[in-house]
Amino acid sequence: MSASFEDIEGRGKTKKSEYKDAIPDLRNELVAAQQALLKARRPVMVVFAGVDGAGKHEMVNTLNAWMDPRGIMTHAYVEPNPLEKERPLFWRYWRDLAGNGQIGLYLSAWYSRPLLLRVHRQISKDLFNQHLREIEKFEQTLCENGVILIKIWMHLGKKDQRKRLEKLSSDPNTEWQVKPGAWENWGHYDRFIELSEEIVQKSAKGPSPWLIVDGKHKRTRTLRVAREILSRLEAALETPEPVLANAARTSKGSPKRLSKGLSMSAWNRRMKPKRGQLAKMDLSKTLERDLYKKNLKSLQRKLYQLQHQAKLKKISTVLVFEGQDAAGKGGAIRRLVQGLDAQEYSVIPIAAPTDEEKAHHYLWRFWRHLPRAGRVTIFDRSWYGRVLVERVEGFARIPEWQRAYAEINEFEHQLCDHGTVLIKFWIQIDKDEQLRRFEERKKTPYKQWKITEEDWRNRKQWDAYAAAVDDMVALTHAPKAPWVLVEGNDKAHARIKVLETVCQHLEVALKQTPG
Amino acid sequence: MSASFEDIEGRGKTKKSEYKDAIPDLRNELVAAQQALLKARRPVMVVFAGVDGAGKHEMVNTLNAWMDPRGIMTHAYVEPNPLEKERPLFWRYWRDLAGNGQIGLYLSAWYSRPLLLRVHRQISKDLFNQHLREIEKFEQTLCENGVILIKIWMHLGKKDQRKRLEKLSSDPNTEWQVKPGAWENWGHYDRFIELSEEIVQKSAKGPSPWLIVDGKHKRTRTLRVAREILSRLEAALETPEPVLANAARTSKGSPKRLSKGLSMSAWNRRMKPKRGQLAKMDLSKTLERDLYKKNLKSLQRKLYQLQHQAKLKKISTVLVFEGQDAAGKGGAIRRLVQGLDAQEYSVIPIAAPTDEEKAHHYLWRFWRHLPRAGRVTIFDRSWYGRVLVERVEGFARIPEWQRAYAEINEFEHQLCDHGTVLIKFWIQIDKDEQLRRFEERKKTPYKQWKITEEDWRNRKQWDAYAAAVDDMVALTHAPKAPWVLVEGNDKAHARIKVLETVCQHLEVALKQTPG
Repeated sequence: MSASFEDIEGRGKTKKSEYKDAIPDLRNELVAAQQALLKARRPVMVVFAGVDGAGKHEMVNTLNAWMDPRGIMTHAYVEPNPLEKERPLFWRYWRDLAGNGQIGLYLSAWYSRPLLLRVHRQISKDLFNQHLREIEKFEQTLCENGVILIKIWMHLGKKDQRKRLEKLSSDPNTEWQVKPGAWENWGHYDRFIELSEEIVQKSAKGPSPWLIVDGKHKRTRTLRVAREILSRLEAALETPEPVLANAARTSKGSPKRLSKGLSMSAWNRRMKPKRGQLAKMDLSKTLERDLYKKNLKSLQRKLYQLQHQAKLKKISTVLVFEGQDAAGKGGAIRRLVQGLDAQEYSVIPIAAPTDEEKAHHYLWRFWRHLPRAGRVTIFDRSWYGRVLVERVEGFARIPEWQRAYAEINEFEHQLCDHGTVLIKFWIQIDKDEQLRRFEERKKTPYKQWKITEEDWRNRKQWDAYAAAVDDMVALTHAPKAPWVLVEGNDKAHARIKVLETVCQHLEVALKQTPG
Repeated sequence: MSASFEDIEGRGKTKKSEYKDAIPDLRNELVAAQQALLKARRPVMVVFAGVDGAGKHEMVNTLNAWMDPRGIMTHAYVEPNPLEKERPLFWRYWRDLAGNGQIGLYLSAWYSRPLLLRVHRQISKDLFNQHLREIEKFEQTLCENGVILIKIWMHLGKKDQRKRLEKLSSDPNTEWQVKPGAWENWGHYDRFIELSEEIVQKSAKGPSPWLIVDGKHKRTRTLRVAREILSRLEAALETPEPVLANAARTSKGSPKRLSKGLSMSAWNRRMKPKRGQLAKMDLSKTLERDLYKKNLKSLQRKLYQLQHQAKLKKISTVLVFEGQDAAGKGGAIRRLVQGLDAQEYSVIPIAAPTDEEKAHHYLWRFWRHLPRAGRVTIFDRSWYGRVLVERVEGFARIPEWQRAYAEINEFEHQLCDHGTVLIKFWIQIDKDEQLRRFEERKKTPYKQWKITEEDWRNRKQWDAYAAAVDDMVALTHAPKAPWVLVEGNDKAHARIKVLETVCQHLEVALKQTPG
């Protein structure tokens, strides 16, 4: 791979006969690889970036023609639409992630925006570099979770692009195909290429290298791209033990030992993890019935008003509720939403994933539910399942849940960076209180649905869960994405603490957001 | 049920003790019904309509508190957002349909818009009545496909609503809760009630009766609504053989006999079905190679320009491709999309439904994919599977596929009514040609994936499929949603006919749409 685009210009033109002879075998092998991928349940994502007119769209059409198009999804991006703008930048790419066995083709995707904004000096060098770092993390989490990522940069020399534009402009039938700003962009050609080289160089360190192709000769570029995709697919298929996203595991880690074995990576040091927070909680905290009733009403009224202000200022809120079985998550959520307008919130209960969800990166189903501007999404259990139940039960492999801390921090960082208010509640009860509640649930007919065999099984793993929670809180607490530990033995205390915390955070966010 | 709201006003207030005593049993029974519904995989949709301030939102909160909130989804609607406006009116209600075992609560849903528009005289009486008819059809297809639909109209007397507004307005803490236009709406109270009575009377003929509740006393209305929901759920659970949406069937219909047994219902007469269209096709039509190549390029160029114009005028296009196995759907679609900008189209291959799709009305997954304004969606197989494979293989019961013709006509009518260009291609080959292509696919390595055991099985059902296709074309052809029969024995002829047809229809649509 070359970092200078000029080096790859001027490669010879492939003869027509040579091209025709090559196709049948190439198609056979591509189709065979596609079928093998389907069996292996691997997702493939092919990113096409580069110069307009270098043949990106034609390449997409060719791949659809040569392979089984039922397994291929093409995504092409323009300016974010209104609903996309209301979510973090990467929301639409997460939404369009390829599932297991699918091949996604991405045109003008995540590299396009930072490049064009920087070409036109609409973002600073720092922001441009930050964009690139975020892309690197995005691609890293995809690759680590089983995505085969292939990146193609399609180049066209300055003269060749001018010729192409001139040819289109000279014919009244094709003149309109020269998009507004195309000539202006060509005027920035040198700067465009300089920044493209910078992107390619910087992202070469990422998990997937670039193939740079000169788009001048159609047959040459088509063979080159198709062969590269083929060889990348074949190489991925030969990987002895690919780590598939969300596949259930049988081998079970020993969480207690391994939680201590987590290396002090950069993000870890930055977060200064403090373990042992849960042990320090004072679970004897209570609140009197009268005071509870009074506070409940006034806090719900306050919340109603704050959320109304937040809506006007387009501040979104994401609330996460985690806790042991019977810790009182549902009850706390109900008291909370009584202070919200039904049009403004959604409660997302997280149960077993659907088969569509299972076929994607484990964060995919949470990205889907991010709120629109000014709305509230409440997750009743969340992405933290990865480092709680999936870790304890061994549904995730050890490296999977270990790297999840960093993946979750990155996800939450993007949410906060977008201006979303994010609060994560851990409601803690002790073992005696849980038993008391289990027994009560068994006795009260309309509460019996709340208690299952699984709850009793989980209870036996109390200590393993406690270690997992301790790691989770230590490794994913951040000033902008705080864990709030809620003493749950007294339900009244817990519910009021949740309401108070949400109100406090909204007040701070409202103060910091200009009207 | 009363059609006059005044009759239900002034019911007594429930005593606090009576209310408290009633709750435990009621909750028990509601939870039991919810669990039975989950087991029976029945979807429930509860619509709340009526006067602002009558307690709709509080009722939703109460139901969430009393039942298992993990099985309840609340949807509240405001003005359609930009992406909702780009689809037919009912798109957002289809998107939010309850799945099997789920309970959906709908606030300010489909009754809200026609009512308010008519109150403010923004739509004519005729359009208002048309809205109501569309709602009736929508509810009918839901109920016929297994949805338990419960409709609650929450009323509030004129004086009671005024009092409520005055109370809110008098306190600076609650003043802002009086929404803009609330007092103006109250000024239209009599007209609002008159039209509400009209709605309730007219939609009483629909598949689900209204419960009209006076919202004046909180405890009274809460018990009344909860008990009504409970009794409706219990009644539905006792239905001996509910027809579940999309459940696989073992009993197989005899399509040949039954296709003739279809009654001449109103829509059937209106459509004047002409059977025997397929037998009249001249499958010997061919196109010379040179002419094909020339036409292909020029039509693709033409399509590119037409679609560009359509995009500017925000005209959406939906194309449906059906045909026997190996009829050439994929090849025709590929030649078509070569004439489209990759950013402007999506090809949706319809394979076996995901489990999420299986848990919904069979049309749900197609509604999801409707294009945004100015874009093209191409369905490679479609909703017609209901009256083709599901009919022939017995996956749908006889009444299910028989009523599907009317359901599909209604769906397509809404699409066309929204201004979408809709064309349905049936590509027909004869039995010899199919055999020839199957053999060729077996021989060509990169085409082997196209041929499966299922194709050979389907081939044995050739005549049953032919009868189903004949019915389908006769019963779902409409001037604005035409079936275009494509002679497919010669691929060149078929591909050109498809391209020509799409261009023609776009030209007509462009002429009819003001710039």
